[in-house]
Amino acid sequence: MLVLGLDPGLALTGWALIDGGGGRLVLRDAGVWSTSSDQDQGLRLLSLWESFGELVARQRPEVVSLERLYFSRNVSTAMAVSQARGVLVCAAAQAGIELHEYTPNEVKQAVTGSGSAPKQQVAKLVRLLLGDGVPLHPDDISDACAVGICHQNAAGLRRALAAGSPS
Amino acid sequence: MLVLGLDPGLALTGWALIDGGGGRLVLRDAGVWSTSSDQDQGLRLLSLWESFGELVARQRPEVVSLERLYFSRNVSTAMAVSQARGVLVCAAAQAGIELHEYTPNEVKQAVTGSGSAPKQQVAKLVRLLLGDGVPLHPDDISDACAVGICHQNAAGLRRALAAGSPS
Repeated sequence: MLVLGLDPGLALTGWALIDGGGGRLVLRDAGVWSTSSDQDQGLRLLSLWESFGELVARQRPEVVSLERLYFSRNVSTAMAVSQARGVLVCAAAQAGIELHEYTPNEVKQAVTGSGSAPKQQVAKLVRLLLGDGVPLHPDDISDACAVGICHQNAAGLRRALAAGSPS
Repeated sequence: MLVLGLDPGLALTGWALIDGGGGRLVLRDAGVWSTSSDQDQGLRLLSLWESFGELVARQRPEVVSLERLYFSRNVSTAMAVSQARGVLVCAAAQAGIELHEYTPNEVKQAVTGSGSAPKQQVAKLVRLLLGDGVPLHPDDISDACAVGICHQNAAGLRRALAAGSPS
């Protein structure tokens, strides 16, 4: 199963394609979609929409995985991120791609085994799991990998539970 | 000039088409796009995207007018509204429609003459300006009318200033 992990933002959206088909997790490709603050917001959101559409047409992920809306102290940033997030969620629905959301704690738990792991530890474990091909900067890519890994693990767990004999 | 005023929301988006071509403001059509909380957010946002696209294809507004992102005490609601708003701003950019944003105070000022007018007074003045054809409920329609009127007035002012002889 090919999962597209996303870390949405208006200026930078991290994305990572994680393949779990061969029994272990493989990072197939990753990057960021960036938009310039010189452009108006409509063109920035449209550029995000188009970048998503191009990647999906080329790589055909089966699932999009992203973090749940979080409560932020910086409301202004939260609203700008939410606009970008809304565009990506809508684009996934239009493409008919399954979408799963995880809380930040679920993502940390899946990657490090602890829901309260610091950010640096999550990034370190992401590289241990996927290899040194994961770019170190910007951290949006590592975050996109983490939420992609989280879905792969959750899906693996669901498959194992479904296959297990009831006792 | 035909202006599409929008009051974005995930559950209800008010819309109003306001024509200023004949020298006075005429409400050409108005309504709401509603989505059910039973549906997943992706399908709700996609339904908003499609409703916008259908209206724009049928009515061909030249401008979309909406309120600026506001700071809200209810961050959860603000983020849900922002997701819907992002979809509409992106859809307007894709359709190549000019987009203008106004603060809540600018909208109140344009409709009532006072930036601190209460909501009921704005709704009353909207009906005085556009006629009793403006539905009384839900108030999302009246709000969409108000931001549409605001752009018509602002555009009229800019035309008058551009036409005036410098002294």
